[in-house]
Amino acid sequence: MSNGQERPWDPRLAPLLKRTAEIRDLNAALAVLGWDQQVYMPSGAAAGRAAQLETLTVIVHEKSTDPVYGALIREAAAMEFEPDSDEAALIRRLERDFRKKQAVPAELAGRIARQCGETQSAWEAAYAASDFRLCAESLKKLLALEREYADCFPEAGSRYNAMLDDYEEGLTTATLDVIIPPLKQGLETLLAEIMAKPAPEDSFLYRDYDTDAQLAFCRRLTEAMGFDYTHGRLDLSTHPFTTDFGLDDVRITTRVRRREPANCIFSCIHECGHAMYQQGIARKYAGTPLSDGASLAFHESQSRFWENILGRSPEFWRNFYPDLVRTFPANLRDVPLDAFLKAVNRVRPSFIRTESDEVTYNLHIILRVELERALIDDRIAVDDLPGIWNDAFERSFGIRPANDREGVLQDVHWYSGGVGYFPTYMLGNLIGATLKERFFADGLPETPRDALDLLRDRVYRFGAKYAPSDFLRRLTGSSVPDVAPFLRYLREKHLGEVK
Amino acid sequence: MSNGQERPWDPRLAPLLKRTAEIRDLNAALAVLGWDQQVYMPSGAAAGRAAQLETLTVIVHEKSTDPVYGALIREAAAMEFEPDSDEAALIRRLERDFRKKQAVPAELAGRIARQCGETQSAWEAAYAASDFRLCAESLKKLLALEREYADCFPEAGSRYNAMLDDYEEGLTTATLDVIIPPLKQGLETLLAEIMAKPAPEDSFLYRDYDTDAQLAFCRRLTEAMGFDYTHGRLDLSTHPFTTDFGLDDVRITTRVRRREPANCIFSCIHECGHAMYQQGIARKYAGTPLSDGASLAFHESQSRFWENILGRSPEFWRNFYPDLVRTFPANLRDVPLDAFLKAVNRVRPSFIRTESDEVTYNLHIILRVELERALIDDRIAVDDLPGIWNDAFERSFGIRPANDREGVLQDVHWYSGGVGYFPTYMLGNLIGATLKERFFADGLPETPRDALDLLRDRVYRFGAKYAPSDFLRRLTGSSVPDVAPFLRYLREKHLGEVK
Repeated sequence: MSNGQERPWDPRLAPLLKRTAEIRDLNAALAVLGWDQQVYMPSGAAAGRAAQLETLTVIVHEKSTDPVYGALIREAAAMEFEPDSDEAALIRRLERDFRKKQAVPAELAGRIARQCGETQSAWEAAYAASDFRLCAESLKKLLALEREYADCFPEAGSRYNAMLDDYEEGLTTATLDVIIPPLKQGLETLLAEIMAKPAPEDSFLYRDYDTDAQLAFCRRLTEAMGFDYTHGRLDLSTHPFTTDFGLDDVRITTRVRRREPANCIFSCIHECGHAMYQQGIARKYAGTPLSDGASLAFHESQSRFWENILGRSPEFWRNFYPDLVRTFPANLRDVPLDAFLKAVNRVRPSFIRTESDEVTYNLHIILRVELERALIDDRIAVDDLPGIWNDAFERSFGIRPANDREGVLQDVHWYSGGVGYFPTYMLGNLIGATLKERFFADGLPETPRDALDLLRDRVYRFGAKYAPSDFLRRLTGSSVPDVAPFLRYLREKHLGEVK
Repeated sequence: MSNGQERPWDPRLAPLLKRTAEIRDLNAALAVLGWDQQVYMPSGAAAGRAAQLETLTVIVHEKSTDPVYGALIREAAAMEFEPDSDEAALIRRLERDFRKKQAVPAELAGRIARQCGETQSAWEAAYAASDFRLCAESLKKLLALEREYADCFPEAGSRYNAMLDDYEEGLTTATLDVIIPPLKQGLETLLAEIMAKPAPEDSFLYRDYDTDAQLAFCRRLTEAMGFDYTHGRLDLSTHPFTTDFGLDDVRITTRVRRREPANCIFSCIHECGHAMYQQGIARKYAGTPLSDGASLAFHESQSRFWENILGRSPEFWRNFYPDLVRTFPANLRDVPLDAFLKAVNRVRPSFIRTESDEVTYNLHIILRVELERALIDDRIAVDDLPGIWNDAFERSFGIRPANDREGVLQDVHWYSGGVGYFPTYMLGNLIGATLKERFFADGLPETPRDALDLLRDRVYRFGAKYAPSDFLRRLTGSSVPDVAPFLRYLREKHLGEVK
């Protein structure tokens, strides 16, 4: 794949690049404020922080829709760069972003931002009380605004398409309709086959593990994986996440629980996958929207590849299990590597998506995708959501949530304006398995650094240069994520089937 | 003192208050980025952070000098509010800030900001090598720009006056000329008298103290003093500081050294003094420039009052010494409170200002004030600075710095554009002692909360409503800081003299 990353930007783009860098700096400032809010901010500072975030958001919006900026983008587009050049890629991204921002009236954007804040607060109260009714009215208002937002993009063909395109460029319901039925059926079949076999012993994963020792181990692990701590950090937060303030400052968070070491370890590996993608992007792209992953799905393909495909493999743990046993001898001295691997790969139906195994995970996602599509299309009523959720869950998993917190309230996405986000998780899993077949046909590498070197060279350094479907086609030959490699990977690992 | 804080803002000011809140939010974002830079930012992220800070600074400058904003201030000024009202106070501040910002061409402000960054970097290298010559040329460039800056304010009467007014509204060399000679003489006499007496035993302050235990003690101490941790934090940094992101998020930092527990404890008390001032400002002033201390000197008067006048007193330590002994029994079990107090109040000449006692501290400051005034007036040459420093130091302290790091390079102020800042430290010490005589004539309160309640009511809640000289006059009857109470306080404490 040609790249042109060794060449500097065309000097005629300097005024435009000054603008993108300014917008990027402001977004970085927003990200610092957001990181601090979740990691260190004292509880009483929430209102002030919300005001700061709103002020900065308004300024970013003004800068991103400034007509002078638009004119610079149009001038650049008229310069006729070679189609595969970095310049052409940058201008394509800028045109798309500018067009999408311009399509939405500023006052609607403001109303949505405020309603997102309100509905998220309502969700927090509802979650605490495990009672969906406490946020139902607020969610209705937010969905009404999201429909209004989607109607700003009539060319998308449907409201849900418009929402999808915000999170994954070019994704449509037509693609989901190709992917979901075989994926759902394949996973339900596989789940039944696995559940018919005896479950592995995993009680040693639920003993007492010192939290400081867990964190120290995770630091050694992520550093050995290749996370660059001179350009990043690991901190604690309620919900693990990755954020960045430019390519030289990429931060991950995790949570730590005394009796669930696997939770901390695998969430660290997951976020580290995101972070190493970000740290691996070509320096040239700094200060432009190309200094990002190709898409949310591509980002998730890497976090999940590291977390599950590599991160739960014998190849990976041969490097780290001796250290883990040394760190927790009382719990693991008598557990051989093979037993540890079986335990951390245990599959079973459970209620909470973020704690589910790699087989059931996508069933959780499919449930959400089907429901949110129906919601935005007005085919189901908000008030009926908890019951519909529980019915659908029982059909897929064979177990029924006992309350709203175990069901419809468990994820914040819908309540913070994120309808259309969930499919990217699913696509990420599919792309991760497809890239595994493509890059590691002869087996996984013996050390994580070998995997990182290859992924940097083939994927990470390209950042957001290519649209996701284009990038996928360049990497795999097909522009639509394929279900088969993912199912093959799962069947081989969990049933011992050979391709 | 009337205050009007119970009344809401005049509704006609709403458009103006929206602007001040926006600027305040942007400054808060800058402060968050600055805090993170010193507390948590990974080392490799410095260049990116500098760019983010510059982008935000430019936007703040644009917003602060926007002609529409200026027109709103002028309209408000024409509304003729009662002179002692909050509205009049706010408009006075806004007019002053706008006028000062407008007097400086944007391109000069930009050149100064860049040169500050450059000279500070040069200072860092010079400090590391303890060689002033490595930053001398860079300092010359910065001083030339500062002279150019000072010349934007011909009405100040002199360049140094123009610099002083930036840090302490209304302060002039005329005031310094009244204060410095008697203060210098009084301190040098006192120092000689103290040094003629036997020094107290303090070797127990230089034994091994667990750093986690030091920090845990400081947390308990500051919380008991009244620092509100639901609206604040305590973190670690190389140089202790206080910052705030609005009245509801005030953060302090400290440093911790195994063999110098007093360093950590008293820097915590000092910063806590700053922070409690900030946390005590009337809520009404949030989002305006009134939500600050009356001046840098007033802020320092509080940090030093808490650190030295209260924080090294028997009244204070009767509350906390039992906890300290429980925390470090091996080191302090056999040290009675009286011996501890003598040790933490030990006076002796030393080279480093930030580690000096309360008697010699102001001699350190006077040295700097005399030199920076001569520097900005071009009466001494930059290249001669190290020798001049060492000569002057030897005259005042009787000891001579062995190298530049112990001498002219020890403080960052001059190298980061802070010529004119040092006098505020000195004035702070004087004001602190004056307020002690005024508020606590019958002795210090038995608990820190009693002191805090009184200071909040008399000082903190007024924020920046009054110009510093006006506030001082309202509080003490005199608008010029008085040397006598400070010398009385020191002589009583260190020589046992009764007033």
